[in-house]
Amino acid sequence: MTAEIISGTEISKAILAEIKQEVAEMKAKTGKVPGLVTILVGENPASISYVTLKVRTALDLGFNEIQDNQPADISEADLLALIDRYNNDPEIHGILVQLPLPKHVDEKKVLNAINPDKDVDAFHPVNVGRLMIGGDEVRFLPCTPAGIQELIVRSGTETKGAEVVVVGRSNIVGKPIAMMMAQKGVGANSTVTIVHTGTKNLAAHCKRADILIVAAGVPNLVKPEWIKPGSTVIDVGVNRVGKNEQTGKAILKGDVDFDKAKEIAGKITPVPGGVGPMTICMLMRNTLRSAQKSI
Amino acid sequence: MTAEIISGTEISKAILAEIKQEVAEMKAKTGKVPGLVTILVGENPASISYVTLKVRTALDLGFNEIQDNQPADISEADLLALIDRYNNDPEIHGILVQLPLPKHVDEKKVLNAINPDKDVDAFHPVNVGRLMIGGDEVRFLPCTPAGIQELIVRSGTETKGAEVVVVGRSNIVGKPIAMMMAQKGVGANSTVTIVHTGTKNLAAHCKRADILIVAAGVPNLVKPEWIKPGSTVIDVGVNRVGKNEQTGKAILKGDVDFDKAKEIAGKITPVPGGVGPMTICMLMRNTLRSAQKSI
Repeated sequence: MTAEIISGTEISKAILAEIKQEVAEMKAKTGKVPGLVTILVGENPASISYVTLKVRTALDLGFNEIQDNQPADISEADLLALIDRYNNDPEIHGILVQLPLPKHVDEKKVLNAINPDKDVDAFHPVNVGRLMIGGDEVRFLPCTPAGIQELIVRSGTETKGAEVVVVGRSNIVGKPIAMMMAQKGVGANSTVTIVHTGTKNLAAHCKRADILIVAAGVPNLVKPEWIKPGSTVIDVGVNRVGKNEQTGKAILKGDVDFDKAKEIAGKITPVPGGVGPMTICMLMRNTLRSAQKSI
Repeated sequence: MTAEIISGTEISKAILAEIKQEVAEMKAKTGKVPGLVTILVGENPASISYVTLKVRTALDLGFNEIQDNQPADISEADLLALIDRYNNDPEIHGILVQLPLPKHVDEKKVLNAINPDKDVDAFHPVNVGRLMIGGDEVRFLPCTPAGIQELIVRSGTETKGAEVVVVGRSNIVGKPIAMMMAQKGVGANSTVTIVHTGTKNLAAHCKRADILIVAAGVPNLVKPEWIKPGSTVIDVGVNRVGKNEQTGKAILKGDVDFDKAKEIAGKITPVPGGVGPMTICMLMRNTLRSAQKSI
């Protein structure tokens, strides 16, 4: 039997449509819309392309989007002053600083200067702490883990009492999604195991997972025989394994051997088109929620 | 075979002696000692007894200990002003507010007003976030989880690659100790599973634990047959199960059936005299570390 494919491409479209609708309702009711500023320092081509995608998405949703480009030689003090200005701007509900920053700027200092209530990336220690404390304390969830949880819920996978195994313990994915799935609440309340490079019996843990979330960054790490028949497999890995000779584009592979795994799993995300498109979508939803709190 | 008893009473004495030595060295070198303020609002008898123990311990270690007692009708604004004063006092390295506070005071607001770098209880969202981010980010670890990790390390239990099962997902014990044991570092790097009231097969998980940490608050929850032979068992539960008719004192039981479990486990903590004495000890060490950072 072939697994149901959980399409992040389709689910993210549906969520973006929901957000667009909510923005329109907000505008009709209050005359206001969510405000998002993207701060780009310098002209790193990859950064420009990420920021452009965020700006386009925000504009399409009807956000008030401010693209604030700064020269590569901006001083740390000026950058901090800029953030302070947006922290105090009531029209701005989300502040994004595109990384990496130039070497003369202390990245952590800059990120920690963002008001946690406008930190829609949710990487500020206050938001990480709120996530772990859980419940009413949570303001924003980090975007990739939030996207993973959304895929699990919208695929109709039961999480309550499910055995969840998270492969990888990064701050961006592994640790937060493990904590989110272990807590009480909708799309959670699971028994969670975190496995990693220090784990002795990776295969045995994966084999007992009703929901397997793989964020290791190692192509084809998870073998088909490690997958519990009928389980839900979320593949967070995006590994460049070569180049398409005709198009020149990178060939992307996940951490799971998709072609074989889909014959065993009940539901599975592809790479690309699985977790990937969810991140920006959750970023936009965080900004909307922030605006809804303050308007 | 009977398990080795991990005595928190003995280990905490050893650690307190180490702290006392470090305080003496600090005083000899710098003329300064760690400063700890305990703020007690009102006259709740249990609170008085907790605060008294902290004060006595701090004084015995050679700390500059300020016992700041405030009347039960102190306003929230005055309490916040008091905390602000200690936040800005360079002689104070740790601030403790004894809970519960009177109902007219917003407890969360007061606790969140403490400078995270003086929050030696480590419950402030910033410190919770730092714990989860891990590594150099960590300033203070919360006292009970830190005490548990210390017991595991000082009992000579190997943690690297060990299967750790944490029973309970409280903010005070379960979630932080799970996160601490899963991270890289000394006394950690374990494969961690968090189980809880929503877990379907509690027994099966406990049975595969090389290190079983039980913080459920349910007397005798863990049955002897759930314990892996030779494993290390840390019992965080402190349950009042009755009263000694002669002394009138409460009879305390852990979450593990100790008498039978000690015939199966390799190492086990008793209740009382296991995790209990470690908490105050770690509080004092957090205060010392805070002082060392700022002096």
